[in-house]
Amino acid sequence: MERGKFLVVEGLDGAGTTTQTAFLVAALRRRGLTAHATCEPSKGPVGVLIRQVLSGRLGLGGGKALSPQTMALLFAADREDHLEAEIKPALAQGHWVVSDRYMLSSLAYQHVSLSMNWIATLNEHALVPDGTVFLRIEPELAASRMGMRPQVELYEALETQRKVAENYERAIAIRRQVGEHIICVEGSLPKEQLSRHIEEVFLGYLGL
Amino acid sequence: MERGKFLVVEGLDGAGTTTQTAFLVAALRRRGLTAHATCEPSKGPVGVLIRQVLSGRLGLGGGKALSPQTMALLFAADREDHLEAEIKPALAQGHWVVSDRYMLSSLAYQHVSLSMNWIATLNEHALVPDGTVFLRIEPELAASRMGMRPQVELYEALETQRKVAENYERAIAIRRQVGEHIICVEGSLPKEQLSRHIEEVFLGYLGL
Repeated sequence: MERGKFLVVEGLDGAGTTTQTAFLVAALRRRGLTAHATCEPSKGPVGVLIRQVLSGRLGLGGGKALSPQTMALLFAADREDHLEAEIKPALAQGHWVVSDRYMLSSLAYQHVSLSMNWIATLNEHALVPDGTVFLRIEPELAASRMGMRPQVELYEALETQRKVAENYERAIAIRRQVGEHIICVEGSLPKEQLSRHIEEVFLGYLGL
Repeated sequence: MERGKFLVVEGLDGAGTTTQTAFLVAALRRRGLTAHATCEPSKGPVGVLIRQVLSGRLGLGGGKALSPQTMALLFAADREDHLEAEIKPALAQGHWVVSDRYMLSSLAYQHVSLSMNWIATLNEHALVPDGTVFLRIEPELAASRMGMRPQVELYEALETQRKVAENYERAIAIRRQVGEHIICVEGSLPKEQLSRHIEEVFLGYLGL
């Protein structure tokens, strides 16, 4: 049986990665393929822990969050577990898998406080996707879509999204050098139009 | 307030690290210090996950264990969390902390299937202990103390303990090069005699 392909959708917060992952899975199914949507953090035991941290339910106590180092290690552990428990077995059965976020998210978000080299090393055993689509939007749009009201938080959100956007561009350049196929599309298009564009350029590249 | 010191007890399975950790904490308390015993995997949220894996309750499904890569990342995440949540705050309060196993265990056990360099990089942010005592025992004694009955398992246990013993020696040499203070003692001595020996040479070195 032919191995399925592993695709990834990436982008800033509010770029629409979840929506476009669902559209991409639907597009693959219309072509007669068995396709699954998945996401990171995963729904496995480490992903559950990460989600508890992100929602503020799990921390060091006294309202303190886990350190960026701990989180980077947990995200890398979750990715490895996600690959072994879910992605690789599905691919081996000939299914296509589309993940809402993957390694580029780690490189872009965690590099706000950690060395990109260190993050890359944690993830060096992770499977290279067969194709990644990056939904490029302006940091201003990402920050405003996050819907934060008070001005200070909006400013902080904007500063963070700007750094993450820069980190994505750098991470994309690095991953392309190691042979990863990454297509960048204009993410601010209306979602149906964006979906058709992704089908055309991304699935076109994959010969579909 | 003077910062407390961070000590570690290491050794093969069955070397008596848990017993000697307790004895060492008692010896520190007899000297009027506030001292805590702790252990790795820790009692924090990531440590709990690791213990579920080690006891066979958590896996990939179908009886398959998590990959060595996932486990190495989880151990490093647990160490970071253990340091931030428990060890560093205690040291800052002037308490002494003695950990039953720490980074040398990761280097020695995980190197059975992974590169020692990679494991060291995962752990590169971890606090360097003020002193480590390594309870050196023969792999044969470690395997027999694990109490495995059937011959094949005993043989496998012995092969593993031999590799881990070699890895410990290599890891100790590497950690000494980066300035870590590690004392090796003959771990097969009767436990009270061993404890007195550790007090003499190890606490002597620490000026106690």
